[in-house]
Amino acid sequence: MKPLILVTNDDGVHAPGLTALFMAMSKIGEAYIVAPDRERSAVSHALTLHRPLKVDELRNHVFSVNGTPTDCVALAVHKVLPRKPDLVASGINRGANLGDDVTYSGTVSAAIEGTILGVPSFAISLAGDRPFLYEAAVPFAEEVARYILDKQLPYDTLLNVNVPNQPQETLKGVRITKQGKRIYDNAIQDIYSPWGEKHYWIGGGKPYWEHGEDIDMQSVMDGFVSVTPVHLDMTNYSAFEVLKRGWKISKD
Amino acid sequence: MKPLILVTNDDGVHAPGLTALFMAMSKIGEAYIVAPDRERSAVSHALTLHRPLKVDELRNHVFSVNGTPTDCVALAVHKVLPRKPDLVASGINRGANLGDDVTYSGTVSAAIEGTILGVPSFAISLAGDRPFLYEAAVPFAEEVARYILDKQLPYDTLLNVNVPNQPQETLKGVRITKQGKRIYDNAIQDIYSPWGEKHYWIGGGKPYWEHGEDIDMQSVMDGFVSVTPVHLDMTNYSAFEVLKRGWKISKD
Repeated sequence: MKPLILVTNDDGVHAPGLTALFMAMSKIGEAYIVAPDRERSAVSHALTLHRPLKVDELRNHVFSVNGTPTDCVALAVHKVLPRKPDLVASGINRGANLGDDVTYSGTVSAAIEGTILGVPSFAISLAGDRPFLYEAAVPFAEEVARYILDKQLPYDTLLNVNVPNQPQETLKGVRITKQGKRIYDNAIQDIYSPWGEKHYWIGGGKPYWEHGEDIDMQSVMDGFVSVTPVHLDMTNYSAFEVLKRGWKISKD
Repeated sequence: MKPLILVTNDDGVHAPGLTALFMAMSKIGEAYIVAPDRERSAVSHALTLHRPLKVDELRNHVFSVNGTPTDCVALAVHKVLPRKPDLVASGINRGANLGDDVTYSGTVSAAIEGTILGVPSFAISLAGDRPFLYEAAVPFAEEVARYILDKQLPYDTLLNVNVPNQPQETLKGVRITKQGKRIYDNAIQDIYSPWGEKHYWIGGGKPYWEHGEDIDMQSVMDGFVSVTPVHLDMTNYSAFEVLKRGWKISKD
């Protein structure tokens, strides 16, 4: 039986990156799209619990949901797909998901939900600016999907893939990486409204990141595809032991 | 010099949990509120880069921002406060932030931003439903703040605190915990609109969580305050080594 692959994203069901990923996954298995009806990168990543959700079948194997990427994965797994999928593929996102920003990424949140539901999952993003060269990322999406289907993934772990947004022939290969750290560049501009009210606009500074060959951001800057194994458990275990010993008992 | 403490949240500047936390922190140091102008738990947790932000001084030491909790922390540290704060305190949130939900929490995201900016940070939430007994959480907010100011925190690590929403005299003390795992309860209701269109409503099932005395959710269920050290780096290091050995070189 061909593997069943759920394809989703946070840029919405009409995003070209989603179509590119769907085509790629259709070469490997039976692919379905269940994706937000519009761009949802600025909405909550949690499950929508306060209202009903609508699933629309746009065409064969393609469904939209008026909810978050996380909703899409939950509904797909439990209601839309003919059986539990073998793989969740999220992307191809227009823009990087690197370093601490992983915590906030809608693209990655879909892969997190897949992982929570016990389905091996990966997120894939194009690191760079317009125009986005989705085709350059496609061979790497296939490579990652085949790797996961063949080797599986460790418990509670997804792969976060970032492809430099440059012509495919200039990409240098794959690097397994660690999540980097954003170093804040302190760029907040003071600006004034037409009525003279002071405002602040965050941004415009030079982004600065932790260096090191196996850091996700460095990898992308060097022209390599970055593949980071991301663990859902954020517990700092060494700190856990330290705190357990050090915390005074506040009540007996 | 008294420690400078930034107090923020994602329920908005007028939330009673914020006031309770501000009063508590004012006993320990010089406290400032810089918080979203309204509830922002359903908005993006990332920095707002696409528009200017307005800071309003509501009264002495109390500021509102028309942005996310993350924006509030960035603006507070770089523009609003007289100097870099010694502590970021986020909460007291109305509702738990436990297990995998930590990834999605606006309350925790403020503490994440504080940590990224190099300020020791904690998030504190009331685990339970209305009515919320913020006063019960106050002594624990103080205890955690004093601990952090005294002992500091490990690199890249914040404390995620959840207080059972029950009368203070019934709380059993503090447990240092690990982030638990949500086990999906598969509760999605099929419901129909007045026009007969099928919808899905996620929820209503019995939430199920990983068990174990030192799991965050279990701790709260047992009547203990849960204190989890949360690490910003989500890299699965053992998987990193496995992948590095196992990944075929895709291009030489």
